[in-house]
Amino acid sequence: MPRYRLTLEYDGEPFVGWQRQDNGPSVQQAMEEAVVRFCGEHAVVNAAGRTDAGVHAAGQVVHLDLQRDWAPETVRDALNFHLRPAPVAVLEARRVAGDFHARFSARSRSYRYRILARPAPPVLDRGRVWWVRTPLDPAAMAEAAALLVGHHDFTSFRSTMCQADSPVKTLDRLDVRTDGAEIRIEAQARSFLHNQVRIFAGTLKRVGEGAWTPSDVAAALAARNRARGGPTAPAHGLCLMAVGY
Amino acid sequence: MPRYRLTLEYDGEPFVGWQRQDNGPSVQQAMEEAVVRFCGEHAVVNAAGRTDAGVHAAGQVVHLDLQRDWAPETVRDALNFHLRPAPVAVLEARRVAGDFHARFSARSRSYRYRILARPAPPVLDRGRVWWVRTPLDPAAMAEAAALLVGHHDFTSFRSTMCQADSPVKTLDRLDVRTDGAEIRIEAQARSFLHNQVRIFAGTLKRVGEGAWTPSDVAAALAARNRARGGPTAPAHGLCLMAVGY
Repeated sequence: MPRYRLTLEYDGEPFVGWQRQDNGPSVQQAMEEAVVRFCGEHAVVNAAGRTDAGVHAAGQVVHLDLQRDWAPETVRDALNFHLRPAPVAVLEARRVAGDFHARFSARSRSYRYRILARPAPPVLDRGRVWWVRTPLDPAAMAEAAALLVGHHDFTSFRSTMCQADSPVKTLDRLDVRTDGAEIRIEAQARSFLHNQVRIFAGTLKRVGEGAWTPSDVAAALAARNRARGGPTAPAHGLCLMAVGY
Repeated sequence: MPRYRLTLEYDGEPFVGWQRQDNGPSVQQAMEEAVVRFCGEHAVVNAAGRTDAGVHAAGQVVHLDLQRDWAPETVRDALNFHLRPAPVAVLEARRVAGDFHARFSARSRSYRYRILARPAPPVLDRGRVWWVRTPLDPAAMAEAAALLVGHHDFTSFRSTMCQADSPVKTLDRLDVRTDGAEIRIEAQARSFLHNQVRIFAGTLKRVGEGAWTPSDVAAALAARNRARGGPTAPAHGLCLMAVGY
């Protein structure tokens, strides 16, 4: 059976998350139903990152097996046709070897968390940014972010519901950039713990508003206690940007 | 009466345009009604650029006079409160001299036209970009754009409904930039003719897809005939970015 690797963009707002669940529509369900409408096959679509409810993607990667050997462009265009009006699009499709696995073959995941720090509410980026009314100090946020990069026990920065066997991960990148009133937190790692980037964002926001110092963040990391990490920032500021193989 | 200058962001999609009209909700009406809810005054709100139906703004400038001398931050925050849920926000408010006029004092207007050139439909930027399925050549588009900069009779690039006395304008800037699959056309002038930036975008798209050469654009300009200019690109790709004084 030919295996296809697809790159997806989606708006997380109407979905309960990537994974199929009983309590509402998932991106996985939207994809699998589009496959049925396209070619009648009931394929399982596997994703690199099981994004939570409300989290967006600009470069999610998935794979699926089809019975028939379609041209990749046909798979892309047909799925885009059958996905409508769901806010999901197939940006690219390609044939890959049978041992490619979107989740287990991934070597890096890149997320962006967007904060809009200004008195006025977002309009053009409504639903894409976390609106924070207070001014934030991006230099302090960057200083704190740098303390989190590396190989650490991230217990203080993972959901208490996280099912990963180990809280130890290597964080390759946690950059803080600004673009006008917007602050972008760019995170990259081989893999992340549950809510890790959102807790980073909630923690760095505390630093940005002056409630915490960078050394408070270092102490929170060392404490290995979720109660010492910052709050979990809202889902709609987060976007899965890319997956590397 | 104190005069206030406001900078506005809005999503043009639900509006018939900036200006009050009988056929639907306008941004001007949304603003003027928010002023009534804020302080009970029936002020006229004057804008620098009377954007058309569906056109967005990230930096529209308006002015209005109020009876009472409110702190500018109060005007900003109160209007943002009373504008909800309309997709309009006051980014900044300041007191200005009584001879400031948002429209007549303006020395430059900057617009951005966004084209997304890729096979897959837009998702995260749905309603903010013109989706073009065919690949476009940005270098050819930039070459053609450069031929339009300067002092010219732009009859070929204005709506036949345009009410400006003269079709002669000075175009200060018409840049073509790329960001991944997105092509951004950045235009700046003291003032623009009706639909001028959208006709530029429609014309440059023709060049980008290879249907026209840059010299066809020079010939269209010289013809001073709307029928020789390119088609008018959709409103939702256009955004008024800034007004200079």
